[in-house]
Amino acid sequence: MKYVYLFSEGTGKMRELLGGKGANLAEMTNLGLPVPQGFTVSTEACTRYYEDGESINAEITAQIEEYLKKLEGITGKKFGDAANPLLVSVRSGSRASMPGMMDTILNLGLNDEVTEGLATLTNNPRFAYDSHRRFIQMFSDVVMELPKSRFEVIIDEMKKEKGVRLDVELDADDMKALVQRFKAFYKEQKGASFPEDPRAQLIEAVKAVFRSWNNPRAVTYRRMNDISSSWGTAVNVQSMVFGNMGEDSGTGVAFTRNPATGERKLYGEFLMNAQGEDVVAGIRTPQGIDRLASVMPEVYGQFTKIADTLEKHYRDMQDMEFTIEKGKLYMLQTRSGKRTAAAALKIAVDLVSEGMRTKEEAVLMVEPKQLDALLHPQFEPAALNAAQALTSGLPASPGAACGAICFTAEEAKALSKSGPVLLVRQETSPEDIEGMAAAQGILTARGGMTSHAAVVARGMGTCCVAGCSEISVSEAGKTLTCNGKVLKQGDFMSIDGSTGKVYVGKLPTIEAQISGDFDVFMGWADELRTLKIRTNADTPADAAKAVEFGAEGIGLCRTEHMFFEADRIMPFREMIASETTEQRKKALEKIEDMQRADFEGIFAAMDGLPVTIRFLDPPLHEFLPQDEDGMKELAGAMGFTLERMRSIVNSLHEINPMLGNRGVRLAVMYPEIAEMQTRAVINGAINAQRKGVKVLPEIMIPLVCEAKELKLVKDIVVSTAEAVMAAEGVKIDYLVGTMIEVPRAALTADEIAKEAEFFSFGTNDLTQMAYALSRDDAGPVLETYFAAKIFESDPTARFDRAGTGKLVKMAVELGRAARPDIKLGVCGEHGGDPSSIEFFHGVGLAYVSCSPFRVPIARLAAAQAAVKSKE
Amino acid sequence: MKYVYLFSEGTGKMRELLGGKGANLAEMTNLGLPVPQGFTVSTEACTRYYEDGESINAEITAQIEEYLKKLEGITGKKFGDAANPLLVSVRSGSRASMPGMMDTILNLGLNDEVTEGLATLTNNPRFAYDSHRRFIQMFSDVVMELPKSRFEVIIDEMKKEKGVRLDVELDADDMKALVQRFKAFYKEQKGASFPEDPRAQLIEAVKAVFRSWNNPRAVTYRRMNDISSSWGTAVNVQSMVFGNMGEDSGTGVAFTRNPATGERKLYGEFLMNAQGEDVVAGIRTPQGIDRLASVMPEVYGQFTKIADTLEKHYRDMQDMEFTIEKGKLYMLQTRSGKRTAAAALKIAVDLVSEGMRTKEEAVLMVEPKQLDALLHPQFEPAALNAAQALTSGLPASPGAACGAICFTAEEAKALSKSGPVLLVRQETSPEDIEGMAAAQGILTARGGMTSHAAVVARGMGTCCVAGCSEISVSEAGKTLTCNGKVLKQGDFMSIDGSTGKVYVGKLPTIEAQISGDFDVFMGWADELRTLKIRTNADTPADAAKAVEFGAEGIGLCRTEHMFFEADRIMPFREMIASETTEQRKKALEKIEDMQRADFEGIFAAMDGLPVTIRFLDPPLHEFLPQDEDGMKELAGAMGFTLERMRSIVNSLHEINPMLGNRGVRLAVMYPEIAEMQTRAVINGAINAQRKGVKVLPEIMIPLVCEAKELKLVKDIVVSTAEAVMAAEGVKIDYLVGTMIEVPRAALTADEIAKEAEFFSFGTNDLTQMAYALSRDDAGPVLETYFAAKIFESDPTARFDRAGTGKLVKMAVELGRAARPDIKLGVCGEHGGDPSSIEFFHGVGLAYVSCSPFRVPIARLAAAQAAVKSKE
Repeated sequence: MKYVYLFSEGTGKMRELLGGKGANLAEMTNLGLPVPQGFTVSTEACTRYYEDGESINAEITAQIEEYLKKLEGITGKKFGDAANPLLVSVRSGSRASMPGMMDTILNLGLNDEVTEGLATLTNNPRFAYDSHRRFIQMFSDVVMELPKSRFEVIIDEMKKEKGVRLDVELDADDMKALVQRFKAFYKEQKGASFPEDPRAQLIEAVKAVFRSWNNPRAVTYRRMNDISSSWGTAVNVQSMVFGNMGEDSGTGVAFTRNPATGERKLYGEFLMNAQGEDVVAGIRTPQGIDRLASVMPEVYGQFTKIADTLEKHYRDMQDMEFTIEKGKLYMLQTRSGKRTAAAALKIAVDLVSEGMRTKEEAVLMVEPKQLDALLHPQFEPAALNAAQALTSGLPASPGAACGAICFTAEEAKALSKSGPVLLVRQETSPEDIEGMAAAQGILTARGGMTSHAAVVARGMGTCCVAGCSEISVSEAGKTLTCNGKVLKQGDFMSIDGSTGKVYVGKLPTIEAQISGDFDVFMGWADELRTLKIRTNADTPADAAKAVEFGAEGIGLCRTEHMFFEADRIMPFREMIASETTEQRKKALEKIEDMQRADFEGIFAAMDGLPVTIRFLDPPLHEFLPQDEDGMKELAGAMGFTLERMRSIVNSLHEINPMLGNRGVRLAVMYPEIAEMQTRAVINGAINAQRKGVKVLPEIMIPLVCEAKELKLVKDIVVSTAEAVMAAEGVKIDYLVGTMIEVPRAALTADEIAKEAEFFSFGTNDLTQMAYALSRDDAGPVLETYFAAKIFESDPTARFDRAGTGKLVKMAVELGRAARPDIKLGVCGEHGGDPSSIEFFHGVGLAYVSCSPFRVPIARLAAAQAAVKSKE
Repeated sequence: MKYVYLFSEGTGKMRELLGGKGANLAEMTNLGLPVPQGFTVSTEACTRYYEDGESINAEITAQIEEYLKKLEGITGKKFGDAANPLLVSVRSGSRASMPGMMDTILNLGLNDEVTEGLATLTNNPRFAYDSHRRFIQMFSDVVMELPKSRFEVIIDEMKKEKGVRLDVELDADDMKALVQRFKAFYKEQKGASFPEDPRAQLIEAVKAVFRSWNNPRAVTYRRMNDISSSWGTAVNVQSMVFGNMGEDSGTGVAFTRNPATGERKLYGEFLMNAQGEDVVAGIRTPQGIDRLASVMPEVYGQFTKIADTLEKHYRDMQDMEFTIEKGKLYMLQTRSGKRTAAAALKIAVDLVSEGMRTKEEAVLMVEPKQLDALLHPQFEPAALNAAQALTSGLPASPGAACGAICFTAEEAKALSKSGPVLLVRQETSPEDIEGMAAAQGILTARGGMTSHAAVVARGMGTCCVAGCSEISVSEAGKTLTCNGKVLKQGDFMSIDGSTGKVYVGKLPTIEAQISGDFDVFMGWADELRTLKIRTNADTPADAAKAVEFGAEGIGLCRTEHMFFEADRIMPFREMIASETTEQRKKALEKIEDMQRADFEGIFAAMDGLPVTIRFLDPPLHEFLPQDEDGMKELAGAMGFTLERMRSIVNSLHEINPMLGNRGVRLAVMYPEIAEMQTRAVINGAINAQRKGVKVLPEIMIPLVCEAKELKLVKDIVVSTAEAVMAAEGVKIDYLVGTMIEVPRAALTADEIAKEAEFFSFGTNDLTQMAYALSRDDAGPVLETYFAAKIFESDPTARFDRAGTGKLVKMAVELGRAARPDIKLGVCGEHGGDPSSIEFFHGVGLAYVSCSPFRVPIARLAAAQAAVKSKE
């Protein structure tokens, strides 16, 4: 088995085997560009390393040795030879670019003896000793977990002793002394001498790269970016060139276009007489890349030509690293450059107009989730980089928010009049809805990606961090405690709903802004996609917002959400607490007027687009009052004693409300609810139609697990609708369908399809049932499972193809077999997740539905799925 | 389409079309027995009746008319003809014998005119008028919903007027007057005259039979006996013969063997000068069938010969109705007779020894559920018949119990010392375990067939009625309220766990008794079955009991059940409430000693049989203290403040505990639990083996939804077990497998099978998840769904083949594909349900596991499944 490849043996297409960096080095070599040569230890070696219980076997060691010899042959230098030393850099490089992995180690191959040789050879002892101390520092930090900062202390002591301020003021002897002090410190800390054998250094460095694949930062990054842990990382071993060999040397980084704006102009910076780490350290200020034209015109000319070649070759904006050693240019790396959302859009649009890319290709060049940055406020990047997070939770609804914290919905409403607020809750409930609407952001200690707070916040487009388990909230004490810090009402905090990070104090935000390229780009996405994108919207306002974002219908109108508001919740509670059909009908009458008006408004907002209205599906415990005051109020409204109300609330208590009496079960138990809702839908539609609106209502029955229950409720709907239409003398075309959100519904979808004109997959509940994991209680389990690498992603956020996906596929096949023209869609939270959308496209659904702010993301993801599936 | 059949057109094999009664009348006709001729309206006509919106279409009416003509031809009488009237009886008759359906209507065809003719023709006016008034009474009751008792009042008035005490003392004129009073009363009540047209009477009667197929009693009976509502009922129209035409006439009922004991001897009774209803009414005392030998020797001889013919023909004990009209014997009906469990066993065994049946056939002759009656106490049949139920709940654990009611486990324990008690609870929890053990029976207001009370009671073999929603329990007030009745602590109640009925007061019980035929019969069952039967047992005592009942291993040992007892629950709670690994390990140490000893005892009881030990799966909320006292005690034991304990309990609160942090998730979070349990199992096995016991431990990981979590825990188990065995220098063969109880586990069973040496289907949870219906909250939903005819059976009691069954089939196929020798079994409550066992046999499982008292039932059901699948 071949585990090691010379750069000249690879190609740009071998990313999976060589990693992105290795493949690009191979490609640049093949293009004849000036690349310091080296070799790549493949990702398969990494996989093997883990299979062998985190050890590098003899076969791989032998191949590294063999390729080291080949590299010696190419460079004409010898590893560990003081007379003519080969020094190398060691870098990680996985298939996808992945921050959080191992840093670079430079100057590997140095020891006391080789350093002396280098000093002689270059006639530059300070350079040699400086290189050696840098190597010890990097190797200790990266390979041996002895932090760099511990060595900085020693440098500072040295500078104090010498009475100087800057590193450059230390001379060759100082550097030589530092090397010895570093080694002594290393031995004291590690109980063993610093490894002097260059070959041992190399193997340890390779192992460190492999280990870094599984460090916590890398694992978290992979999970957030859907990167499989099975890919592994490659290791690039490249012969060193030195930018710090004098004023005819230097190093720099450049982009072929501006990564912040997308402008087509070389963008970057360089430092003369420096190594790469100096640019990063920020002690000396680098110069703009334009300046290189005057400093070294020939090199600049060569570099701009190479940049142009690379961009044309890769047909994308490139991010390049280079070094100039004694006037000679070397390319150390090229890759597709990271860019802001605005830049990504501009570059994609420009590359098409420049004839470099097709629309299909351009559409694949923007990560759908990047669009969030255009639609929501963000923290200023500089402030964000400087800030230290207090803790983090789940990135439940994107955007950035900063405000005075408060602990109840009432306070949030009150305080919001005098400035921005963050609502902090243990978990939110429907009663908090007005406080949530008043807040800039929402932070909860409990609950997952589909918890109440998360779902409602996404619907509102409000930033939310959920399930932040390290914080402890005392509503009574009006305090929040986290990692020893206590914050009280009115203190400022900042939360980032795109990363889940939570900060103390005020971080400045920048507003969302949609550029002109947005419409062009999204137009292409719309041309290319076949999946329709609908929205989840419960009010006319939400519906209008979603249409602005390009929604092509409502896939989910949750009729119980219409009753979250304070002035509406009372009749809803009365309905739930009714003991007789008469009481219930009385409460339903009050509700009917509100619903009809809502539906009419929604139909008007969606003129000509389909509107799927889900019949009531309230988990009862979310709607009933649990405290004394609430019970008193409700008892008063219904003319009951408090005692009786308590007994009603008690009798409606369920041990597992997610598995209780809700959805279609309520309509079976109380047919008058389904009758009322049908009248409200049909009358609302008739009113809208009379005003010239084109209405396309679709009535959706939730939580069905058996065809007969759907038939029973459908019969009620149809007979009620017919009666209303007959009375009004108007004909409305409407559909009756069901959600497929209970596993048994998927398993018996053929029977259910006989009664249902459409299926809408409720993937939230389907996932909960398939995993036996409640969205409300998943927090501690998910944390444990991520840490144990059992789950690589959160199945409530990214749809599970391997398991739950089989239920969806089965239901699609059974449903189509029974009713070939059945309309199929998704209305779970997964409808806004790009990876999930790709799956739904693949199984041939007609549409996905997501919250309004996710509609553009879904449009783009659907286009990408369509393009990819053609490939 | 042919809807109507003469008796002479049918055969005994046409049960599906003609119903049992119709098929048997046809068969007797074919055998040349003296059967009053008639015709059968088929079950297909009933189905058609419902399809046509509960109306009889013209095609069916015309056929009835046509066959009425044919019957006139056969009998030489004419329907509605006063000079020579044809009178008929109308009876329902479905495929399976089904009490709760329509009663018989006799004498149909009578009106004023025909009655006069009959009086003349028979020269017996009293007989004619009596027949007429009987007909009006029956028709009104059965067809028109005007209860019989309302007419009895009129008869009583008449008797008062006449100063007589008995019906027989009323003369012909009285009867004639009664007919007119009846008709007047009918008109007053119904607003229309009593139908005089015999043809209209007949069609109305047929419709009433069809309607009765869906009356609530019939629906309930079908649900309890797994009869499909789609079968429908047939209607038998038979020409009347009269047992009340004088002293040379009579009527009777007889069995070819004793239905109570199985003794091979004609058993029955008769009444001279009477119609069938007089026997039932019980005003006159019938005579034993032997007496007929002296009263009418010739008829008796003919009857015994017919009885013998029928038994030989049907090869089963027959239940026959006959009428003697003026000295001539007529057979009105024959059917396989209902029998007690003891009789069923004796008859099955006798028929084999008499050479009439094979063992395979005999095994099919006993309903598995009947065995319950042999294993549990029952109410005395006479007392039961006379008793009026107060209410009813779910028949959660069979048997009969009577005792003083009490409302807490403590009271049950205390009161049980002075006499039998019934424990009445809202719902039970693990803390009630000792009270449950002390009680004769358990009654709960909430919870379904797999609720805590139901599962534990079945395990104990204690009678239990669960989810009795009409009762309201006040623990504080020590009262139970139901349908207006208030019962207080110490009052006696009686409950029947086989029917779910609840009675006020003491009903006498008879003890369980197993006859000698039991062992012979069960021996045949064991020979014939291929499915192994294991038991669910958590203690050495349960295990020993189950072996007595024939268990071939333990399929489910619930390790958390070992901690229900008061002296053990504390360390268990400490373990749950631990905040650090050290605290948890301390608690686990205490638990380890108890578990090891338990396992050792269980291995000893199961010497040579496999024992599947499920690792901890406690829904946390069931085990943590919820009240102040409990928290104080636990806080004290752990050295915590009450405040801290309250916060721990609060942090462990879950909104949906069934979908929360339990099962394998706990072991992933706290590997020390799996380590401790592995040590306890392996050390227990080593100890037992050293005493000469053959141990076959199987470690089972619950609630797995993903192969990786199983692998993680399995690795812990294997490494811990290896370490223990190495330390002890002993080798134990053990398996590691998993439950398939989460839908995703079934969907990804191929991946899971790579890690699991066996699958045990946890059909309780699988059903809950597949339906999104919690066992704890299912009560109101099931009630509604039964009433709405959406569910025909309770899926938690009878396994759902159409939906959940697909998951099981899929898991079996995927599991076998990945690991061909995988061991497959079931350990859910369905493992004791005959219909479910048939399914599990069909999909090819190796074993089912059920509570000890269900083992004999499962053995028989498995044998029946094997015999049926061969057929």
